[in-house]
Amino acid sequence: MPTLFTPPQHHFQVEGDTPFSTDNAATKTEFDDAKGTLKKNVERIAEQQRKLYAHDRFSLLLIFQAMDAAGKDSTIRAVTSGVNPAGFQVHSFKQPSKEELDHDFLWRSATRLPQRGRIGVFNRSYYEETLVVRVHPEYLGGQRLPYHDASQTPTDAFWQQRFASIRDHEQHLARNGTVVLKFWLNVSLDEQRERFLARLDDPKKHWKFSGGDIKERGHWGDYMAAYSEVLPATSRPWAPWYAIPADSKKTMRAIVSGIIADTLEALPLEWPQVAEKDAAEFDDYRRLLTP
Amino acid sequence: MPTLFTPPQHHFQVEGDTPFSTDNAATKTEFDDAKGTLKKNVERIAEQQRKLYAHDRFSLLLIFQAMDAAGKDSTIRAVTSGVNPAGFQVHSFKQPSKEELDHDFLWRSATRLPQRGRIGVFNRSYYEETLVVRVHPEYLGGQRLPYHDASQTPTDAFWQQRFASIRDHEQHLARNGTVVLKFWLNVSLDEQRERFLARLDDPKKHWKFSGGDIKERGHWGDYMAAYSEVLPATSRPWAPWYAIPADSKKTMRAIVSGIIADTLEALPLEWPQVAEKDAAEFDDYRRLLTP
Repeated sequence: MPTLFTPPQHHFQVEGDTPFSTDNAATKTEFDDAKGTLKKNVERIAEQQRKLYAHDRFSLLLIFQAMDAAGKDSTIRAVTSGVNPAGFQVHSFKQPSKEELDHDFLWRSATRLPQRGRIGVFNRSYYEETLVVRVHPEYLGGQRLPYHDASQTPTDAFWQQRFASIRDHEQHLARNGTVVLKFWLNVSLDEQRERFLARLDDPKKHWKFSGGDIKERGHWGDYMAAYSEVLPATSRPWAPWYAIPADSKKTMRAIVSGIIADTLEALPLEWPQVAEKDAAEFDDYRRLLTP
Repeated sequence: MPTLFTPPQHHFQVEGDTPFSTDNAATKTEFDDAKGTLKKNVERIAEQQRKLYAHDRFSLLLIFQAMDAAGKDSTIRAVTSGVNPAGFQVHSFKQPSKEELDHDFLWRSATRLPQRGRIGVFNRSYYEETLVVRVHPEYLGGQRLPYHDASQTPTDAFWQQRFASIRDHEQHLARNGTVVLKFWLNVSLDEQRERFLARLDDPKKHWKFSGGDIKERGHWGDYMAAYSEVLPATSRPWAPWYAIPADSKKTMRAIVSGIIADTLEALPLEWPQVAEKDAAEFDDYRRLLTP
C-alpha cells in the first residue's frame, strides 16, 4: 500500500499533536500583490479541477471554520468563482435538523461528501461538534447520547473520543482518495468588532447581522481554548489544518487559494490515456467526419 | 466516559483477533422447540423495540452476511414480523450504483444508518467490500481507487486498511449509541445444493434462482478464506460477529432472534420519566377530560 498523499508543507500549517495556542497564531501577515496572486491561483485551481474531474480518482474536501465575520462565505466565493460549478459541491451547515440529530454527529456531513473527481466545500462542518458544542455543552442534550448525562459537564475523555472519531473518519476518506484541507480563518477580536459595526451601518449588510453573534463574541476565550485543542488534535499530514491570518480579506484569499492550488498541482493527476486500439479507431472516425 | 455497551456473551460469538476458521464453525446444532422459541423471542423483541423507541438514546444495527440461499431474507422476515414496522428500517445492498461507486466504500450504507431509537437491518453491507470484492478483486476497478492499480492483485495491507476503516466506523457508531450485531449465516455446501435444486424445481422459487449463484458456488473455498479472516478481524465486544449454523432455518431463526432479544433486554433502556411538575398537570388534564 503506497503512503497516503500529503499536501505540500505550508508556513501556516498546524502541526499534529504539538502544543498550539491561538494566542501565538497571527491574525495579520505581509503579502505582496494579494489581489494578483488570488487571480492567478484561481486560474491554477480551474485548470487542475478539470484534470481532477477527468482523472476521476481523487476528490478534494475543503473545510472552513471560523468565528463570525471572519470571511468564510466571501473566501469560498472568491476561491470558487471562475471554476466550473459542476465540479464544485458547496454545503453550509447551520443548526442541525431533527433528522440529523437522530444520527451520529458525522452523519449529516457524510451524506454530503464530494463525489470522486469533485471538490467539496464545507462552510462549517462536523468540527462544530467540538467547537460551538464545546462552548455550549447544553446543545448535547438535543443529541440524546446514551453515554452522556446532559446535566453534567462533558469529561475530557468525551472530547478525546470525538477527536478520535474525526481522525478515523478523515483517515478513511484519505485512504479512499479524498484529500481534506481544513482552514481556520483567524480573525482578531478588534477586526471582528469593526466588521460587526460595518454590518450595522450598511443596509446591504444588515441581513448578515444577528444579535446572537454579539453574544457569541462574549465567549471568545472559550472558543479560542477549544480551537487551541482541536486543531493540533485533528491535524494530520493527509488532512492538515491551516491557521490563516484573517484580518485582511485580500491576504487571506491569496493564501487560501495558494494552498488549494499547490495541493491540486502536487496531486498525481493524469489526463486519462486512450488505449492504442481506441486511438487507432480515432483515424477511422476522423475519416468519417471529413467531408 | 463509561465503557461502551457490550451485548451478552454468546456461544456462537466470534472472538476478535483470535484465529478462526470456517472449517471449525458448525453448520448444524441441536435446538429444542426452535419454533416456539422464535415465537417467544419475537414477542420479546417487539416489547423491547417499543422501549428502545421511547427511550430514544440507542439504536440497533443488524447486519446479515452469507453465501447465497443461506436464508438471509427469510430470517430477516421471521425476526422482524410481529414488530412495529415504524421502528424498523431494512435495506438490501445489491450491486453498487454509479453514484455509490463515486464515494468511499462506507458511504452508501452510512446514508442508510438507523435513526436513534430504531432498529436498522442491512441485508448484505459494506462487508461485501471485503468478501465478494476480495474473491473478485476485478470489481475494484469500478471504484477507481487512487492507491490501487486495478491490474494488480491487492496486497494484504490493502485489506488490512479496509478492516481498520470498518472497525473505526463501527466504534464511532458504538460511541454514539448504535449497537451493531453481525450475523454470518453459515450454510454448508451440501445444503446450498439442496436449496438451489429446490429453487429449480419450485415455480414459486424460480425468481430466486440465478445462474450467477451457481458460478459463485465454484468460489466457495475463496469465500470461506475471506470469512475466516474478516470475522475475527472485525469482531469487537461492542460490535460482535456471530457464526450461526444455518443448515436448519428453524434453528437459525431461533438463535438469531434470541441474540437480538437478549441484547435488547441487556441494554439500559428506560421508559421516559415525566417531570413532577408535568405529572401534577396530568391531574388537571384528567379533570378536563372527565365528563
